[in-house]
Amino acid sequence: MSNTDSLWIKTVSIAPPSLQDNTADAERLISALRTTLQTNNSINIDLSLIKKLPAILRQCDFNVRCTLFNDGRQWLVVGIQGAKEMRPVAGLAVDLGTSRVALRLLDLTDGHILAESGFDNPQLAIGPDILTRIHFCESSDGLTKLSHLIIAGLNQAIDDLCQFVTIEPQDIYALAVAGNTAMTHLFLGLNPRWIIREPYIPVVNKPGVLKAAEIGLQLNPAARIFIFPNIGSYFGGDLIAGIFYAGLHRAPETAILVDVGTNAEVVVGNQNWLIACAGAAGPALEGGVTKMGMMAGPGVVDKLFIDPQTREFALHTIEDKTPRGICGSGVIDLAAQLFLSGMLDIRGKLIPAACGKRLTVIDGLKHLIMVPGEQSATGSDLTISQADLDSLIRSKAAMYTILETITMSVGMELSEFASFFVAGTFGSIIDPRSAITIGMLPDLPLENYKALGNSSLGGAALALTSAESLAEIDHIRDRITYLELNVNQDFMNRFSAAKFIPHTNTSLFPSVKTAIR
Amino acid sequence: MSNTDSLWIKTVSIAPPSLQDNTADAERLISALRTTLQTNNSINIDLSLIKKLPAILRQCDFNVRCTLFNDGRQWLVVGIQGAKEMRPVAGLAVDLGTSRVALRLLDLTDGHILAESGFDNPQLAIGPDILTRIHFCESSDGLTKLSHLIIAGLNQAIDDLCQFVTIEPQDIYALAVAGNTAMTHLFLGLNPRWIIREPYIPVVNKPGVLKAAEIGLQLNPAARIFIFPNIGSYFGGDLIAGIFYAGLHRAPETAILVDVGTNAEVVVGNQNWLIACAGAAGPALEGGVTKMGMMAGPGVVDKLFIDPQTREFALHTIEDKTPRGICGSGVIDLAAQLFLSGMLDIRGKLIPAACGKRLTVIDGLKHLIMVPGEQSATGSDLTISQADLDSLIRSKAAMYTILETITMSVGMELSEFASFFVAGTFGSIIDPRSAITIGMLPDLPLENYKALGNSSLGGAALALTSAESLAEIDHIRDRITYLELNVNQDFMNRFSAAKFIPHTNTSLFPSVKTAIR
Repeated sequence: MSNTDSLWIKTVSIAPPSLQDNTADAERLISALRTTLQTNNSINIDLSLIKKLPAILRQCDFNVRCTLFNDGRQWLVVGIQGAKEMRPVAGLAVDLGTSRVALRLLDLTDGHILAESGFDNPQLAIGPDILTRIHFCESSDGLTKLSHLIIAGLNQAIDDLCQFVTIEPQDIYALAVAGNTAMTHLFLGLNPRWIIREPYIPVVNKPGVLKAAEIGLQLNPAARIFIFPNIGSYFGGDLIAGIFYAGLHRAPETAILVDVGTNAEVVVGNQNWLIACAGAAGPALEGGVTKMGMMAGPGVVDKLFIDPQTREFALHTIEDKTPRGICGSGVIDLAAQLFLSGMLDIRGKLIPAACGKRLTVIDGLKHLIMVPGEQSATGSDLTISQADLDSLIRSKAAMYTILETITMSVGMELSEFASFFVAGTFGSIIDPRSAITIGMLPDLPLENYKALGNSSLGGAALALTSAESLAEIDHIRDRITYLELNVNQDFMNRFSAAKFIPHTNTSLFPSVKTAIR
Repeated sequence: MSNTDSLWIKTVSIAPPSLQDNTADAERLISALRTTLQTNNSINIDLSLIKKLPAILRQCDFNVRCTLFNDGRQWLVVGIQGAKEMRPVAGLAVDLGTSRVALRLLDLTDGHILAESGFDNPQLAIGPDILTRIHFCESSDGLTKLSHLIIAGLNQAIDDLCQFVTIEPQDIYALAVAGNTAMTHLFLGLNPRWIIREPYIPVVNKPGVLKAAEIGLQLNPAARIFIFPNIGSYFGGDLIAGIFYAGLHRAPETAILVDVGTNAEVVVGNQNWLIACAGAAGPALEGGVTKMGMMAGPGVVDKLFIDPQTREFALHTIEDKTPRGICGSGVIDLAAQLFLSGMLDIRGKLIPAACGKRLTVIDGLKHLIMVPGEQSATGSDLTISQADLDSLIRSKAAMYTILETITMSVGMELSEFASFFVAGTFGSIIDPRSAITIGMLPDLPLENYKALGNSSLGGAALALTSAESLAEIDHIRDRITYLELNVNQDFMNRFSAAKFIPHTNTSLFPSVKTAIR
């Protein structure tokens, strides 16, 4: 075995054939690999590679370097080169987001990251949200068009990424793709029509492993694609990837994982069990909340501090550019700081006396001026309205109630989690202190909060680093108990209690001390 | 389960989805099939079928008829139709002969034969024998050309066969292909170069199961092709198919199987062990032996009787046409009858006194006139030369010595075989009585001889009738011990002894009584 070998790459010296051993080339290689891999599982070689095998073996004196892929049932030989050849062997992880697609190119010899990139999902041209796209599939060729858009986008991004690190798409042998259920369907050319219609049935739960060519991706022809499984319309492969990445399913202690997007998906579990639920946490938690709300980007307010004494505002904008808007984490900071400085009451209402000249009325509705026009990039006041704040309060209350519900369902309390994983871009930029202050997240020690970043991409990349990944991921999927959120009277009562800052029951948030309490 | 169900076809009623059970369409079908098949093995559906699945399921109220294929490791769903649709479901067995390709179309619902056909291997245009074709592969595009010829020939034959029984090539879901090692290589587009060069290494021993599209066959896109494995250059899938067809590997009693072509392949075995060898039995046993020798066809002498008293000849020709040549079985009859009527001595030499005016000398060489010119279709005498007869004697001696050698190697005697299978066209038309008379086959009771016909085609067809076939066939291959024929002094001594009619040791052939002994 060569020292450049790794999990997926095995260099083997094969005993050359003789009259005493006339085993065929393919079986000779398989037998050598079986010894190296120490496996009794079946090992398969694509016909396209078998065709090239005799010449390769004889050119390099029966010393070859093989790229392998374990599909959970068998080992597949997906690449063969002479042992002294040193063509790169790359793998690609893809997070197939509704808005944004992220790619991470890995060197499969040691798992190190070669490059990353991202591009706006070209399906945005058809519709910004997944529902519009699903409806678009009703039109003739709608599905084909959407499917083609994402595949063409990926092929272009792969080309660019390869050029950037000077390898060829042919050098990519393995792909792992995580996306929500609808995006996965569009990626595979499967009609998502029944996903959004009662009883909400996906076409497939476990797409498993496909050949790149089957879906039109221009990689090595033998390259295999692993597609993360889903457990239904609302709980997709991106979330399974997140669990896999956070390692919830391996830990002895029970942990909680929250992924916040349009929905809040929550998973609680440990090495023995996993419970998941998904509920609408409201759009407040994405950029869309306010008129000035937006995706994080240069000039966007992402952190905000208000001096409780002077009520002076201190803003931080991305790349320190002149402010032009606010993103989700900024809104949460803003609400927390307004509350702590006594400008917002426990119901989330602006207190005119405390807001002073920062308060203005537009179309009969109270607004708080965050940045006056003369300091903003737009020239207009950047404001947040009472309606925006009301919406944030409802969202954070929904979020807290969902967290409470799933935790109660397993007989635990929110305060018991030693690990609280927050996934997604949102999770990376949110200040947990502010989220606790407004009562969106439970009052845990800050060190218990762990931002995962893009856990869908992380999980996809992780899947390429172990031979057991695919079985492990299938196992995660099969073990998840999906908790249907029953919005009953008890839920509504707890929701109402959570519609205060931080909560009607302040003993749940001992760390939150307000100036006006 | 419907009463039109069979091994490969399962009708399932699937519980429609509900809010209580949101399992995806694909997994819902797999789960229903798992119950019907009573298997824990994995069940896989091609992406192309998954794409159509939601519409099919909903059109037929979740009652579907599935066509399945067991590849030895897993069940593959290769066709799905509404339970009430009655599209045909066909399978195709192919014997990939060097000279002739034979096809048998089966109805997979009950295994009955729909039609058969055959065509001359279009590779004959490149070279009549396999060696010429293998050398042709050295030229650029040679392999591609040969491979294309056989695939195009098959596609045409499949089209014709389907038209004949008014089904579509799309209705064919399973193929089993048996051929010698070189033909299998050319069929798969694998370079046979190393098959004929020491140490005689095939590219692959177990090609296993491929998709029809992978090799360009125009069947149902999901159709699977099973290719019989080989155990080396000289022992191909056609022979494995023969063993499978004869059932040697299942019988408690030891039996022997002989397949005579350019080589004589011999297998001895029972349910516990199998031993095989292949050796040159000489061209005498195919049509090529004499100048007039030919493949069986109209006007070809296939049976011959000589009155031992009058030495009058009685000929039978195929389709009772005017004689124009003689085929292998005719030559064996001729030699046996010449011997029994005292016209041939025990060395196989023509006895001028006994031959009388049937003897003529051409180019200094004795010839026996079988049919005088005035009675033949060609207008010339149909003769057999002393050289032809010498060649036949060498061939039959080689055959007998090979049979003796392999039988001795397992500590048995030729007289002990209760079943002596003779495969191939040759086996079907040969008169075992004549073959015994000249000492080519051992002196067993005639009822012990069993002509198998085209056992390669028979084995391929049989492979399509059981879910365990593929594993069974692999098992046959793995169990065969290949006996390298060691042409040592002992072999040469026994060969010399067999170069007499029937043998120097006449006690081995008690049933052969000659007029001149």
